[in-house]
Amino acid sequence: MSVKPSLPKGTRDLLPEAMQKREYILSVLKEVFRKYGFLPIETPAMENLGTLTGKYGEEGDRLIFKILNSGDFIKKSNKDAFVADDSNAFGQSVSEKALRYDLTVPFARFVVQNQNDLHFPFKRFQIQPVWRADRPQKGRFREFYQCDADAVGSDSLLLELEFIRMYDEVFKTLGVDAAIHMNNRKLLGGLAAALGITERLGEFTIILDKLDKIGEEGVRKELDKNGFDPKVGDGLFEIIGATGSNEERLEVVSKLVSSTEVGAKGVEEAKFLLENLKQLNLKNEVVLDISLARGLDYYTGAIFEVKAKNVEMGSIGGGGRYDDLTGIFGIKNLSGIGISFGLDRIQIVMEELNLFTDEQVASTEVMFVNFGEKESLFSLTLANDLRDLGVKAEVYPDNAKMKKQLDFANKKNIPNVVMIGSQEMEAGKFSMKNMLSGEQKEYSRIELLEHFSTQKGNQYGRH
Amino acid sequence: MSVKPSLPKGTRDLLPEAMQKREYILSVLKEVFRKYGFLPIETPAMENLGTLTGKYGEEGDRLIFKILNSGDFIKKSNKDAFVADDSNAFGQSVSEKALRYDLTVPFARFVVQNQNDLHFPFKRFQIQPVWRADRPQKGRFREFYQCDADAVGSDSLLLELEFIRMYDEVFKTLGVDAAIHMNNRKLLGGLAAALGITERLGEFTIILDKLDKIGEEGVRKELDKNGFDPKVGDGLFEIIGATGSNEERLEVVSKLVSSTEVGAKGVEEAKFLLENLKQLNLKNEVVLDISLARGLDYYTGAIFEVKAKNVEMGSIGGGGRYDDLTGIFGIKNLSGIGISFGLDRIQIVMEELNLFTDEQVASTEVMFVNFGEKESLFSLTLANDLRDLGVKAEVYPDNAKMKKQLDFANKKNIPNVVMIGSQEMEAGKFSMKNMLSGEQKEYSRIELLEHFSTQKGNQYGRH
Repeated sequence: MSVKPSLPKGTRDLLPEAMQKREYILSVLKEVFRKYGFLPIETPAMENLGTLTGKYGEEGDRLIFKILNSGDFIKKSNKDAFVADDSNAFGQSVSEKALRYDLTVPFARFVVQNQNDLHFPFKRFQIQPVWRADRPQKGRFREFYQCDADAVGSDSLLLELEFIRMYDEVFKTLGVDAAIHMNNRKLLGGLAAALGITERLGEFTIILDKLDKIGEEGVRKELDKNGFDPKVGDGLFEIIGATGSNEERLEVVSKLVSSTEVGAKGVEEAKFLLENLKQLNLKNEVVLDISLARGLDYYTGAIFEVKAKNVEMGSIGGGGRYDDLTGIFGIKNLSGIGISFGLDRIQIVMEELNLFTDEQVASTEVMFVNFGEKESLFSLTLANDLRDLGVKAEVYPDNAKMKKQLDFANKKNIPNVVMIGSQEMEAGKFSMKNMLSGEQKEYSRIELLEHFSTQKGNQYGRH
Repeated sequence: MSVKPSLPKGTRDLLPEAMQKREYILSVLKEVFRKYGFLPIETPAMENLGTLTGKYGEEGDRLIFKILNSGDFIKKSNKDAFVADDSNAFGQSVSEKALRYDLTVPFARFVVQNQNDLHFPFKRFQIQPVWRADRPQKGRFREFYQCDADAVGSDSLLLELEFIRMYDEVFKTLGVDAAIHMNNRKLLGGLAAALGITERLGEFTIILDKLDKIGEEGVRKELDKNGFDPKVGDGLFEIIGATGSNEERLEVVSKLVSSTEVGAKGVEEAKFLLENLKQLNLKNEVVLDISLARGLDYYTGAIFEVKAKNVEMGSIGGGGRYDDLTGIFGIKNLSGIGISFGLDRIQIVMEELNLFTDEQVASTEVMFVNFGEKESLFSLTLANDLRDLGVKAEVYPDNAKMKKQLDFANKKNIPNVVMIGSQEMEAGKFSMKNMLSGEQKEYSRIELLEHFSTQKGNQYGRH
């Protein structure tokens, strides 16, 4: 009665090679987060359904995975909804819990619930999977990791500078050439005020957010279709079309929006950031991009989006400043700023650009061929000595044919193979083969340990 | 309309302090796993319901969290079951997916499904949460991490030796004094054969497994209640009661069980392990413990359980050899061996024994007090230089009262605070306060960078 194994659609296994790459990226992210004073937290996969519903819009609510109540849940179910074929209402009555849809809402819940144990301004990072019942597509999964860093409890623009530098440092370390696009919701607000459409800012932002996909003409058509005056598009594209340095383009915006209160504030903030970026020693370019809108409506200040250069890929990171993350859970006006990293996309970018080095995805460094019980037990003592030096070593567990053992080493990308038969044991000299060059060399026990401990020394020196 | 935030029962948030400890333990586990040739994998949180049901017994099936199907699930539901108030059958008809209950069944599914992309003998480790609808108790959660390492595709006893050494190395590195208990299912099988109860081995093992809880008398009573001959208990406790070294006690077992085929094999395996343990340079004690049974019935050879010394706590690790992990999914007779680590319990043990050092749970190393915009921007350049040296540094984002800023540093366990006001900026000399000793010292910019880079140098040297 064997079951042919399969996975739910939209989910995937991660095999060692993919995992090694992912763990390398995560190690870089975590080290940068920690260097800037961020500490890790985790929240449970399950939240109360009421914590999540209503936070992601109607479409979002439909994409939340609900957990069926345990026990005799039928008794307490909404039988009218069942009879009426109302799966939505019935579902609410048989599930109290749901899988988290993102890390933002759980984080807001976390901050309010644990406020007495947190020290504000509170800087946290969080790297956990989220689940969405989206239609699975190529490269889009129903389970995927989000990597977020947020600082809440301060409206200081120093944080904007720190987040920009964190983006820069992460992508510099990973070797990804990135452009960090920056805008400010207050500039968009000022633009709306100047164009007399303040009360339609949300709609306007959503249309602007489509610029990448539908182009200027498309945006103008959408504006027209939604009853905006043609002057709105004219004003918008006058600013977006401006050329020159960040500072010069900010001047163009400033002329249009500085007469409005919110616009003037936006100009002041953007100016402060542009001025102080210079002393951050960034490797990657920061682009003031007035066309950047970001979909989420809770942003209120600076917004960011990172794009990889030299490769076709959407944004590999994004975030921004918000003023009221936690209001819905009872703490009003807690200002904060957060950014996230698109783990899957960063991995794809790095693969396409061949940025992973052998060292980053290295598995075992040295394998001992197994020539029988006595020999393998001897090899094991050497392997253990190497492990104690920090070397990744393994003994092939079975006395299989040489070809099979070498094949295994090749497939597992093990660069060094040591052969110790009974003669070598007696002579105290073992030959090690480099699997890449094919070169073979003899080592005594001490020489072998020295060979690897010198290598380790060098490696540590490079860190 | 604020919602008072709460969590589903049996779940918890992990705050930075707990997370730092956990991440330290995990970093040790991962490093040891990698040194022994194990590579990471991950499987999705959700499996098809059919992959999980029937694998954990009836009680286990009830504890599996089911995911409600999306969309108009009522249409395809089992309406008869609904009318009959049969929540179990109805639940099956409205949920195709479930949350993983452990890592073992998903791993078996993984091995079969990905067999063509894996290199056998395949060594993997996997560290992911699992979910069980257990009644929540103190210290028992509905979501918790499992940390497993398995090697499949070889029945070599070298692997048993390696797993014992991995246990030893992990607990040695963590500073936990541990006793590694070892038994062999074949010895228990031989015992059963010698006592004439081979066909009741499963029952016998389950009763023996309770020894820790109910003692010798309790086990004898249970055996009696279940109709075992009193000679069974006599034979069992003759062996369990034997004293002396591991080798001497194995001799006692050997006398009773070596006449049976399975028993003789068990003695041979145990002898091999005991003999070769000596050359592993273990720090922790290995105890041949014939009373060790392990609940799961898929074990067929060596079984292990690790207990912390000097603290009251159940097992902090366990595992063993199995012969048919993947049969249910279509690959028969794939032998393997695996161990797991009890992350939560290890953390509690280390807390009780005060084993976490400041360094392991360190947050930011140096904080800059914020005396205003100009000063804080200057501090930021220094913080950035320190970060580039690998130092964890932060600038307090707001120009708050000094007391508030120092309180924050204290609460976040930041050991060093640098104060740069306008005078210090001009003089180029900054005072740094050690928050533990209260000591204050002056540094120039270069001196400050040197101070920390020397510290870093020492730290790396110690690794």
